[in-house]
Amino acid sequence: MGLALRRSGVSVAGFDRDPVHLQRAVEIGAIDEAVATGAETTTGADVVLVAIPVGHIADVVIQVLDAGANAVTDVGSVKAPIVDAVAAARPALAERFVGGHPMAGSEQEGLDGADADLFIGTTWVLTPTGHTDTAAFTSVRALVGLVGPEVLAVSPEHHDALVAVVSHVPQLAATTLMDVAATRGEEHATLLRLAAGGFRDMTRIASGHPGIWPDICVANRDAIVTALDAYLAALERVRGLVTEGDRDGLLQLLERARTARRSLPRGIASGELLAELRVPILDRPGSLAEVTTLAGGMGVNISDVEIAHSVEGGGGVLVLVIAARDADAFVGALAGLGYHPARTELP
Amino acid sequence: MGLALRRSGVSVAGFDRDPVHLQRAVEIGAIDEAVATGAETTTGADVVLVAIPVGHIADVVIQVLDAGANAVTDVGSVKAPIVDAVAAARPALAERFVGGHPMAGSEQEGLDGADADLFIGTTWVLTPTGHTDTAAFTSVRALVGLVGPEVLAVSPEHHDALVAVVSHVPQLAATTLMDVAATRGEEHATLLRLAAGGFRDMTRIASGHPGIWPDICVANRDAIVTALDAYLAALERVRGLVTEGDRDGLLQLLERARTARRSLPRGIASGELLAELRVPILDRPGSLAEVTTLAGGMGVNISDVEIAHSVEGGGGVLVLVIAARDADAFVGALAGLGYHPARTELP
Repeated sequence: MGLALRRSGVSVAGFDRDPVHLQRAVEIGAIDEAVATGAETTTGADVVLVAIPVGHIADVVIQVLDAGANAVTDVGSVKAPIVDAVAAARPALAERFVGGHPMAGSEQEGLDGADADLFIGTTWVLTPTGHTDTAAFTSVRALVGLVGPEVLAVSPEHHDALVAVVSHVPQLAATTLMDVAATRGEEHATLLRLAAGGFRDMTRIASGHPGIWPDICVANRDAIVTALDAYLAALERVRGLVTEGDRDGLLQLLERARTARRSLPRGIASGELLAELRVPILDRPGSLAEVTTLAGGMGVNISDVEIAHSVEGGGGVLVLVIAARDADAFVGALAGLGYHPARTELP
Repeated sequence: MGLALRRSGVSVAGFDRDPVHLQRAVEIGAIDEAVATGAETTTGADVVLVAIPVGHIADVVIQVLDAGANAVTDVGSVKAPIVDAVAAARPALAERFVGGHPMAGSEQEGLDGADADLFIGTTWVLTPTGHTDTAAFTSVRALVGLVGPEVLAVSPEHHDALVAVVSHVPQLAATTLMDVAATRGEEHATLLRLAAGGFRDMTRIASGHPGIWPDICVANRDAIVTALDAYLAALERVRGLVTEGDRDGLLQLLERARTARRSLPRGIASGELLAELRVPILDRPGSLAEVTTLAGGMGVNISDVEIAHSVEGGGGVLVLVIAARDADAFVGALAGLGYHPARTELP
């Protein structure tokens, strides 16, 4: 993130509790300068980004909020426990914290895996709540937008349920598959020699950093168990199809999955038409979260967001830029919630 | 395979029941000439390779054996049902059939996915039996060796159990995971936008050709159900670890899987020392299968194989080339079976 931001012209000050890592971050150009404490990162900063293990994020977010940060975000893989913990500990300051989760990574650990292109074309999730400050959200949205991802806003709880399905259970499924294959005793060497590209693809994430996962599994336990049960039930159905030799049932499953796999979204194509929506949110507390997570729940990327403040009141107009092809459906959904968006096609 | 063989200077005649595909194979240079029937492929051929869906392989192998083929092999994903069917239908001719299975492929179908480099660095399994003719095995081994894989010999039944673990269950696991993610109704679009690289890697094989899998699942049902049950039981244990919040148990699992994933064999490095073993097999029926599948069961690649016939008797000396680092263990195992191999380090 440091490499990518600095390439975009952003000045980055960094802190790590390990001085060797911190020095190395300076050496590879991931940060402009090292500071002496976490609190010092807030000095003059528009946004503070906390990138540490899930179990410690809330404590550090609270530290930087207490130090006067304007806007704070994180990159933890679980959101509701962190957002809730910050809100409970600092009810007033919590409005400046916007949970975040970039859906990107590699099986490499730490600075050796640093790649300024890592986020291009990926999805970055932000999790505003009814209390999130619009200015903080806009700052965080602008910052993460510099490194190339699409940005999707969903509620913290919804995020956690979704990533259980597309990230946490896949990690456990790949790990378990690798472990089953690896623990067949004498057959081991032969078995692994037979592992072709498909098996290698499927188990690649099992070669990643194990240390982050116990925390994630504990923090997101309920959503993971729910998703794992859905996976187990589906595998039991597949076992039934195989046992019964049900070719038609197997073919239907395989074709459905192939269609879904081939239609995995690839993001907004460059050159795609965009639409600007101006949504008055005067006198509607929690509107930012409501409007942006409505978009997120429909899979609508927020290409840009800003708040046009009313001169006279506390509200204003939320200005969103989305793909023009999504605009009809999204405007309809907004109207269903009582909003009155104005739509403009962008050139 | 045609592209790869022709690049190695091998002359290839081909037949396909679909004349459009057959013509296209000529056009892209996968075959030198098209012939009018499957039987005609045997004319003047050292080896006939049958590459068709699993459910039809045995019938076509029998056709080409009846037409006088010197040696026949196939590329089916399941071996015992095919090898058994050929042996039952043609007890005498079956010695010229050597089952084969290249552990390579792509999610692309048919000629559009053709790639002369597909087999380089992969593993190609051959499944000799106690009745396999040594000359036929040697011809098939020499042919597949031209396209760049390592060659591992295992029994047909052992092959089927192994691929259930490293190929068939992974395919079903990826397909099921994709299907679970795709059938979450309203969340669908959002969910799939959150699918990062790990999920894409894990589900890549679900985008392959569905048509081949029902046959494979039926043909290899018992081995697949056994492997699927092992996977389900392991996932249930993981569910328990998550439910209990057992960080240590989760970490142990993740570390074990990572170690296994990172040690997936990469094949014999070029420049590696080789050893030649000369194994007298006089008066030992079934020795070819016994010796080569002993190697396969130990994960030992057969870099080269030939039979040096005795002038006076029906037996001879089986000459194997393997990696020098595997030689001690393999010579010991051969001695345990009553063989007396002579070992030479190759320069």
